[in-house]
Amino acid sequence: MVIVMKPNVAEKDIAKVEEKLAEFGYQAHQIRGVGRIVIGAVGDKKDKGVMASLETLPQVEKVVPIMSPYKLVSRIVKKEKTRIDLGDGIIVGGEEIIVMAGPCAVENEKNLCEVAEKVASAGAKVLRGGAFKPRTSPYSFQGLEEKGLKMMARARELTGLKIVTEVVNSHDVPLVAAYADVLQVGARNMQNFSLLRALGKQHKPVLLKRGLAATIEEWLMAAEYIVSEGNYNVILCERGIRTFERYTRNTLDVSAIPLVNIYSHLPVIIDPSHSSGERQLVPSLSRAAIAAGADGLLIEVHSNPELALCDGPQSLTPQDFSLLMPELRQIAYVCNRRM
Amino acid sequence: MVIVMKPNVAEKDIAKVEEKLAEFGYQAHQIRGVGRIVIGAVGDKKDKGVMASLETLPQVEKVVPIMSPYKLVSRIVKKEKTRIDLGDGIIVGGEEIIVMAGPCAVENEKNLCEVAEKVASAGAKVLRGGAFKPRTSPYSFQGLEEKGLKMMARARELTGLKIVTEVVNSHDVPLVAAYADVLQVGARNMQNFSLLRALGKQHKPVLLKRGLAATIEEWLMAAEYIVSEGNYNVILCERGIRTFERYTRNTLDVSAIPLVNIYSHLPVIIDPSHSSGERQLVPSLSRAAIAAGADGLLIEVHSNPELALCDGPQSLTPQDFSLLMPELRQIAYVCNRRM
Amino acid sequence: MVIVMKPNVAEKDIAKVEEKLAEFGYQAHQIRGVGRIVIGAVGDKKDKGVMASLETLPQVEKVVPIMSPYKLVSRIVKKEKTRIDLGDGIIVGGEEIIVMAGPCAVENEKNLCEVAEKVASAGAKVLRGGAFKPRTSPYSFQGLEEKGLKMMARARELTGLKIVTEVVNSHDVPLVAAYADVLQVGARNMQNFSLLRALGKQHKPVLLKRGLAATIEEWLMAAEYIVSEGNYNVILCERGIRTFERYTRNTLDVSAIPLVNIYSHLPVIIDPSHSSGERQLVPSLSRAAIAAGADGLLIEVHSNPELALCDGPQSLTPQDFSLLMPELRQIAYVCNRRM
Amino acid sequence: MVIVMKPNVAEKDIAKVEEKLAEFGYQAHQIRGVGRIVIGAVGDKKDKGVMASLETLPQVEKVVPIMSPYKLVSRIVKKEKTRIDLGDGIIVGGEEIIVMAGPCAVENEKNLCEVAEKVASAGAKVLRGGAFKPRTSPYSFQGLEEKGLKMMARARELTGLKIVTEVVNSHDVPLVAAYADVLQVGARNMQNFSLLRALGKQHKPVLLKRGLAATIEEWLMAAEYIVSEGNYNVILCERGIRTFERYTRNTLDVSAIPLVNIYSHLPVIIDPSHSSGERQLVPSLSRAAIAAGADGLLIEVHSNPELALCDGPQSLTPQDFSLLMPELRQIAYVCNRRM
Repeated sequence: MVIVMKPNVAEKDIAKVEEKLAEFGYQAHQIRGVGRIVIGAVGDKKDKGVMASLETLPQVEKVVPIMSPYKLVSRIVKKEKTRIDLGDGIIVGGEEIIVMAGPCAVENEKNLCEVAEKVASAGAKVLRGGAFKPRTSPYSFQGLEEKGLKMMARARELTGLKIVTEVVNSHDVPLVAAYADVLQVGARNMQNFSLLRALGKQHKPVLLKRGLAATIEEWLMAAEYIVSEGNYNVILCERGIRTFERYTRNTLDVSAIPLVNIYSHLPVIIDPSHSSGERQLVPSLSRAAIAAGADGLLIEVHSNPELALCDGPQSLTPQDFSLLMPELRQIAYVCNRRM
Repeated sequence: MVIVMKPNVAEKDIAKVEEKLAEFGYQAHQIRGVGRIVIGAVGDKKDKGVMASLETLPQVEKVVPIMSPYKLVSRIVKKEKTRIDLGDGIIVGGEEIIVMAGPCAVENEKNLCEVAEKVASAGAKVLRGGAFKPRTSPYSFQGLEEKGLKMMARARELTGLKIVTEVVNSHDVPLVAAYADVLQVGARNMQNFSLLRALGKQHKPVLLKRGLAATIEEWLMAAEYIVSEGNYNVILCERGIRTFERYTRNTLDVSAIPLVNIYSHLPVIIDPSHSSGERQLVPSLSRAAIAAGADGLLIEVHSNPELALCDGPQSLTPQDFSLLMPELRQIAYVCNRRM
Repeated sequence: MVIVMKPNVAEKDIAKVEEKLAEFGYQAHQIRGVGRIVIGAVGDKKDKGVMASLETLPQVEKVVPIMSPYKLVSRIVKKEKTRIDLGDGIIVGGEEIIVMAGPCAVENEKNLCEVAEKVASAGAKVLRGGAFKPRTSPYSFQGLEEKGLKMMARARELTGLKIVTEVVNSHDVPLVAAYADVLQVGARNMQNFSLLRALGKQHKPVLLKRGLAATIEEWLMAAEYIVSEGNYNVILCERGIRTFERYTRNTLDVSAIPLVNIYSHLPVIIDPSHSSGERQLVPSLSRAAIAAGADGLLIEVHSNPELALCDGPQSLTPQDFSLLMPELRQIAYVCNRRM
Repeated sequence: MVIVMKPNVAEKDIAKVEEKLAEFGYQAHQIRGVGRIVIGAVGDKKDKGVMASLETLPQVEKVVPIMSPYKLVSRIVKKEKTRIDLGDGIIVGGEEIIVMAGPCAVENEKNLCEVAEKVASAGAKVLRGGAFKPRTSPYSFQGLEEKGLKMMARARELTGLKIVTEVVNSHDVPLVAAYADVLQVGARNMQNFSLLRALGKQHKPVLLKRGLAATIEEWLMAAEYIVSEGNYNVILCERGIRTFERYTRNTLDVSAIPLVNIYSHLPVIIDPSHSSGERQLVPSLSRAAIAAGADGLLIEVHSNPELALCDGPQSLTPQDFSLLMPELRQIAYVCNRRM
């Protein structure tokens, strides 16, 4: 970390900063510039509290961190990409691009199984579906809860698809983990630290959605919460960020794909459905995601979008999905991936 | 709600929308414009699912909501400002502006009581302090938990101040409610719907912070979650939003004060400390908040900001606080408020 | 447009709105809902002033526009994609994806011609290079002005590449148009309406960059300024928007590609260099852009990025560029495009 | 500036950076940390090009600036607040808070003079009014141009008010300067560098509005453009930034007031009308601005907002304005200012 002193600072103020640094276990190195004095602090700490503490000193202008605040999820610590094994040869983070598809919310078993069969036959490897739904309005459909999880399990039996479903609080983690192959953390819960810790203490893979206004560093810090408890199986999922655009609900940050690949060893997938909120954008965004190097896709497919209890406008029909898959496969192929 | 059809739509598509509206229990009114046909839907529903469902129809361009999605927290439903009685004559939402002050995190009893006595003598009515701390980094100080709550309770005994403290998940609600006079929901938990429901099911007042990137409508919807479970005692707290500015951590949205006062009957207070992250901005922002009509302030005060385990840079010293209070009182006075 | 009245409005207030609408030449259609009365206004006006005027009426809550404020650039008015002919068979908006490449700023003739030859031989069709540079700091390099334009012209002679270069104010339009094949409007000038009008009054194609915080509607409105003066040859260029991300300078909005394709007939290209500000992201973002359906790319290439007088960190070397082009060609091919 | 090297960098890469720094005229100071090597560069340059150039080196991770990029507008260079004398004892940046009021656009002489007389008698010292209007839509009213300037001049004669009016391109600067006492740069032109330079080359005071998505540093850099040409008379004007909020057009950044006061010696005023776009928020925001330490206000007042050709919804009536002024005066008074 580098401490920038205010202009025209007294020697005793510099001494005070150096004293503080020594207390915290850092070595201080002064650089006397033309306009400013800066102090380089050498040490191995991760606690942001130290930086904050130094910033309170009256003659310190700012403290600039040099190293990223995350460690275990960083590419520096682990060079090889993490491969997350969902069983039966389905690996997220390998050469194959894994497509997860299904309805926003689980509504009834018949529809779910019908969609599951169709997306499986088009090439999806994982079935998505929400049983616990975090909704902005208390008056919206909140999900079928355990009943929904049971339906997901039956669709898995029927199709061989793995299942991914959301968990909305730490209390429900054991219940959801009893059914799901991958536990999803929604964008609004990205910084629900109790939930992240609980997911770190179990071993099922976690799909961690990026918060609507989160930076990539904050997202990686959220992953660090899970990993620091012992669970390294974290799949990052970009699902659109909030911007000023009004033609779509969210804006896909496609550069999150190469950025995560530079800064972290964790696999990263894209949710083109929430990224736009518009069915007609899903094909373009899916193609772009694969071309940019995504390890997978999470796509909403509903047998009858008009009747969906949530997020109908962004759902593909099974037929749309079947037409899209071969297009995506071709792009994967020219990018040296498989799907 | 108003349904805007795509240009050059066929009569049968219009009929389909009207049929759907009838199914959902709405009456349809067509307006045939020069470039577009729009259909006004008259009904009393709040479920956003209906809007979403209509948007999936192939010939519908967009659906425009007419009424706000919240109801119980709206000024239309209740004209008089809600007064939240914390006991001993301390009322949030009345003529008096209530100042809540104290450290970011509870660190030890001696410091806490010392700060509590000082802020009380300067005119604060409520002591703030975190026992459960949601931190961006898993390696930062996470709070003293129940031990911290006990220290808060002792500071209350000593000073007569009421206490406000954060609760970070639904599981801890009973524990925190056993100690606190007001339960705080942090910005990162504004859409933690399990937590909001749990807080709605108990009767202690709730201080609901606005999310970093939340619109005022989303914030009111979060309050609606609490109120719809039966607890009307919600204090809204603006604590700065995320913007592109890099000189401060967050940006105070001072217009949230008049906007909440227009759209809702709930009281609204300001946290000038988190709103900037900079101690030297706290006086200006506190003055601005009162001048704009805030019902209270939540200010970080630490006896020794340099040693604070969190958020030192934004904490006032007790002395700074004592100097600020008379300035604020003068502004309150010319704005026909008391403090 | 739809006028939403405040709750519990008097009949005379409704009458006043209807009277106003009649004055402005609209027909009024009332819809009496459960909670609100809304008035549909039927007419053919584009002036936002009418909406603003209605919103000032004391009993009007809001006015919701139904039709987009742009007209000539809209897909509704013109169904076929606009093809912009740069001469010699180079067409932007056709089946071929057009790559424009070159340095951020023109620095000297030797380097420029060297880069030009290399990008031409790799398959670029247009040479980019700035002679007038709008820089955030008055102390940064401001461009070679006409001398730079002359160097561009010589590079064109030498290579057959067309040239695109920025114009920063209306006064310079004739000068730049005398040399350039395409005139570029920078992001900071997207709403420099004098400049837009001047460009609309000449006939050379215009490359209009999207503003850093502009919505797609505002961008299309800026294009409408040019087109409404008579010049239909406008190429839209997405160059990254400002977001909260700190790992990159800007964030590529890849969904701008399908959105422009839905709402407008104008071709749309991507600048992957400014979109990230990071050379190592340029290949991923270029691939994504083509997969999403872009009509072209604008890529910074500098023979020696370390010595570049501006934007070195985002420039590819000619060698990087030569390696990237065949990858892009493969994606173009599977997306049924040529390059 | 501080150069952060990538992890595990070779000695020769460090040597290369140091060699580059020497070329650019900097002295290098190495700090060898636990995880990284950083190099402090000591020198007196302002050119961002140097930073960019260093960032292109393959083993450099990032370059962190230590000093702000502006100089002449900085508080470090000039400690005393700049007082801008408009003549007749009207000084912006002194003890008195200067209120500028008037219509968005000049429409006709009778209305303008009527409003001018009313705002003058309520205490305004400057008349605002647009003769050249930059409008988002080419189909909106674009201003009366020189005819409008003449009307402004006549209103000045009649009332003794000074006049402030917008100039939209460098070509019009002499014309507008011939009439106006203060030349306004609109938010969309904040980075129209040709315009800024032209304003720097004449001596009339300039009112520089902050861009909708500009940081305070960018705003100060825009002011630096004007000042670096020789004109020190720059008044900064915060007019609301773009945020995600949909209840208002823009969001007032009230913290811009203390921030400008910390970083710069230039006076700062607030435009509460554009900051919200809503007449009913203007009183709260005006009060907040004065309480936060603003040097002035720029308020839209129109004799008949319903008939305004632009921005009616945010205009106060002369009567609203007369009622607001005494309230503001009281706040100014308790903040030790005059108005």
